[in-house]
Amino acid sequence: MRNMEKIQQYIAENQDDFFLELFEYLRIASVSTDSAFNAQIHEAAGFTAEALKSAGVSEVEINQEYGHPIVMGRHTIDKEKPTILVYGHYDVQPPDPISKWENDPFEPVVKNGAVFARGASDDKGQVHMQIKAFETLVKTDNLPCNVIFLIEGEEEIGSKGVSRFIQENAGDLNADVLLVSDTALLDKETPTLTTTLRGILTLEITVKSLTKDVHSGVYGGAVHNPIHVLSKMIGDIEDENFQIQIPGFYDAVINIDQELRKNQEKNAKAFSRMTEQICCGKEVCEKTYSAYESATIRPALDVNGIYGGYIDKGHKSIVPDSATAKISIRLVPNQKPQQIAELVREHFTKHAPKSVEVDIRVEDVEIEGAGDPVLLKDGGSAFEAAEAAFAKTYDKDLVSIWCGGSIPVVSVIQSQLGIQPVLMGFGLESDNIHSPNEHFYLENYTKGIETIAWFYHYFTNGR
Amino acid sequence: MRNMEKIQQYIAENQDDFFLELFEYLRIASVSTDSAFNAQIHEAAGFTAEALKSAGVSEVEINQEYGHPIVMGRHTIDKEKPTILVYGHYDVQPPDPISKWENDPFEPVVKNGAVFARGASDDKGQVHMQIKAFETLVKTDNLPCNVIFLIEGEEEIGSKGVSRFIQENAGDLNADVLLVSDTALLDKETPTLTTTLRGILTLEITVKSLTKDVHSGVYGGAVHNPIHVLSKMIGDIEDENFQIQIPGFYDAVINIDQELRKNQEKNAKAFSRMTEQICCGKEVCEKTYSAYESATIRPALDVNGIYGGYIDKGHKSIVPDSATAKISIRLVPNQKPQQIAELVREHFTKHAPKSVEVDIRVEDVEIEGAGDPVLLKDGGSAFEAAEAAFAKTYDKDLVSIWCGGSIPVVSVIQSQLGIQPVLMGFGLESDNIHSPNEHFYLENYTKGIETIAWFYHYFTNGR
Repeated sequence: MRNMEKIQQYIAENQDDFFLELFEYLRIASVSTDSAFNAQIHEAAGFTAEALKSAGVSEVEINQEYGHPIVMGRHTIDKEKPTILVYGHYDVQPPDPISKWENDPFEPVVKNGAVFARGASDDKGQVHMQIKAFETLVKTDNLPCNVIFLIEGEEEIGSKGVSRFIQENAGDLNADVLLVSDTALLDKETPTLTTTLRGILTLEITVKSLTKDVHSGVYGGAVHNPIHVLSKMIGDIEDENFQIQIPGFYDAVINIDQELRKNQEKNAKAFSRMTEQICCGKEVCEKTYSAYESATIRPALDVNGIYGGYIDKGHKSIVPDSATAKISIRLVPNQKPQQIAELVREHFTKHAPKSVEVDIRVEDVEIEGAGDPVLLKDGGSAFEAAEAAFAKTYDKDLVSIWCGGSIPVVSVIQSQLGIQPVLMGFGLESDNIHSPNEHFYLENYTKGIETIAWFYHYFTNGR
Repeated sequence: MRNMEKIQQYIAENQDDFFLELFEYLRIASVSTDSAFNAQIHEAAGFTAEALKSAGVSEVEINQEYGHPIVMGRHTIDKEKPTILVYGHYDVQPPDPISKWENDPFEPVVKNGAVFARGASDDKGQVHMQIKAFETLVKTDNLPCNVIFLIEGEEEIGSKGVSRFIQENAGDLNADVLLVSDTALLDKETPTLTTTLRGILTLEITVKSLTKDVHSGVYGGAVHNPIHVLSKMIGDIEDENFQIQIPGFYDAVINIDQELRKNQEKNAKAFSRMTEQICCGKEVCEKTYSAYESATIRPALDVNGIYGGYIDKGHKSIVPDSATAKISIRLVPNQKPQQIAELVREHFTKHAPKSVEVDIRVEDVEIEGAGDPVLLKDGGSAFEAAEAAFAKTYDKDLVSIWCGGSIPVVSVIQSQLGIQPVLMGFGLESDNIHSPNEHFYLENYTKGIETIAWFYHYFTNGR
């Protein structure tokens, strides 16, 4: 017999075990960006599958055919009932620079109520929260609907494998809502749904001007320094108003409704308080947009890394043979990665001087929807179920916020399967995801478990 | 009884032993730019001292009080005779990138008549050549004059210690000529004296805009990317005519006489043939100057290395906290490093946006003359002695060439001691100094020994 009031007690009684299992999960260095961590990727996939099984998911399998293992869980109680598709990822960003961590990034430490480890908030902690919400419903005899878990290991490298998997296995993924916990609350006290995601496109540019490094005394002045050429290309990419100078770059960008922008003003202030804490000088913004808007509903191009020549201690008097920049471009509706990739390629090719060779390597975007931006509207049954669930666990009213990050799979599922996403994350923007000292508040984790359980309830039964 | 004709025979009979000792010398990884190689620096200094002793130098000592050990050798046969001051350095550039070497850079290999190893040409091979020239004269009873050897271990990091040593020990370094083998022949067949050296100034610029690396999704567009800022600063440093855009940069540059420039046209062609082999596209040059002139009698600014953000395999979606460029500036008469340093500092400080912190670290230039450019005139007794010496060992006429490299000590000795330098090197510009696969032709080495011996003879006795 169902009794949703039991869930709080179950969570309270079992949270120490939840934490211990979570810490085990976080100990696995499942870095997807570097094949040196392949063993740990497989270990994390196996761990995820075991956690699903022990939570009570009836069918669990690991698919190895689409790159890093995809963990699928399926639990069907009644074909007439709705199905929730839960997506998350077990892979993590590299921990570098390791020297800036206060603890080993793969040896979780609890401080000030938060667990510190790479992947704590993005996204193993939130995946684990989803698994434990399911377990709580099963063990308290409250599970009201069918569930599919889709947990992958390539989110931090663009989710290419899982995107193909979704395209080729669409029939197995029929569901009524996509539930994703890979975003953040506005603050610890405020129930939050994320309504935008930016798309993403990554590329590398190498400028080569010499067949080898040469002596800067002998040749300096007579050969084109590839670092100068690459710097010029990057330096000229945005103007003083922070507008990208690639022709056509903004053509597909839609203007966001003034009223929607006005509704977000409070969030813009919160965002600026956050940037204040990390900026040496002032935050910046595109002309006529706030910093918050510049980081969410406006596209951005960032060099994520640059290298060329001698970068060790001391000095080496050379003109280097080449220089390379790694670049990510965050896209907003209705920019398409394929189109922007073409514009970027044209622009850099056109601006390369004849004295150098330029190699532009754009990451392939083959799957329809992959890398696309996402814009969700408030309202509808999923939104209302989330609102009702949050009302059970939080005192404040629900707010919707914009997120400048990217979850590639969300747009793929939207576009391929036509399933409505709900982005219900319990991280905080201050969690240091992708940075040293990533952490996740354990209170957010346990309140997340409870809120997700309530979401199942309201989504199935209505308000 | 003197018989200079014996020297050729002595060299021929002993060259195998010379080579073996040279290879031992090259096996010592005496990299001065990185303190991790401190033990090898000391080992190389000790080796140099022993080589001087076994060559017959009567007083040899190692001075440890000015940074890396300075090896001094003194051999006085008659105070009425002239004294030759021989300068060279036992330290070497780092071998990076090691992957591009065909052999271990510190395990010499002989191929096509050349010995391949870091330091083979710059400058351990040429120092050893000087020592063996001295030995040849002593052992064949032909030494005509007094000699002072000054062999240091910081040339590749700016010769600061030895510059102070020279300033503070000027009285012990009285000599009639400064003989340096640290430059190149025009080609294997052409006797060559180098008549210009560029001065040098090195600095590092770090642009910092964030207190930590942050997620490029969450913050991209709202925070100033330090790589963009640094790239803009570098990208704008020269215009499309390759002129440095720092106000006042060219104010002190003297114009080289048109006739002198005309005399060098053949060398300019040889230089362009050389750049052709290393450039992916075309060589470049400052407007109204040839590439050769741009690399010798015109100043040049080169970023020797740049780094910032994530530079390992794969991708990491961050806005990095900072970015750094290592820069060298080659100076020409009458630019002074101190003045140029000030201009650079002003320029970059002025162009830094308020959103970032810029840290400019210029290497100190304290000693008068250190880092100054050098311009020598043809003619005089030292030049004539060199001409006569080359005439004994080469078939072609002597040419003078310009060199864009820097030997900091030459200007210090000129300025502090007033001694005339003779830059009589036996490398080739194609020796890959400062690059992978550095090498030194053994024929140049043995002909160098013979030529240097004849230089002693003609400098002391006249033609």
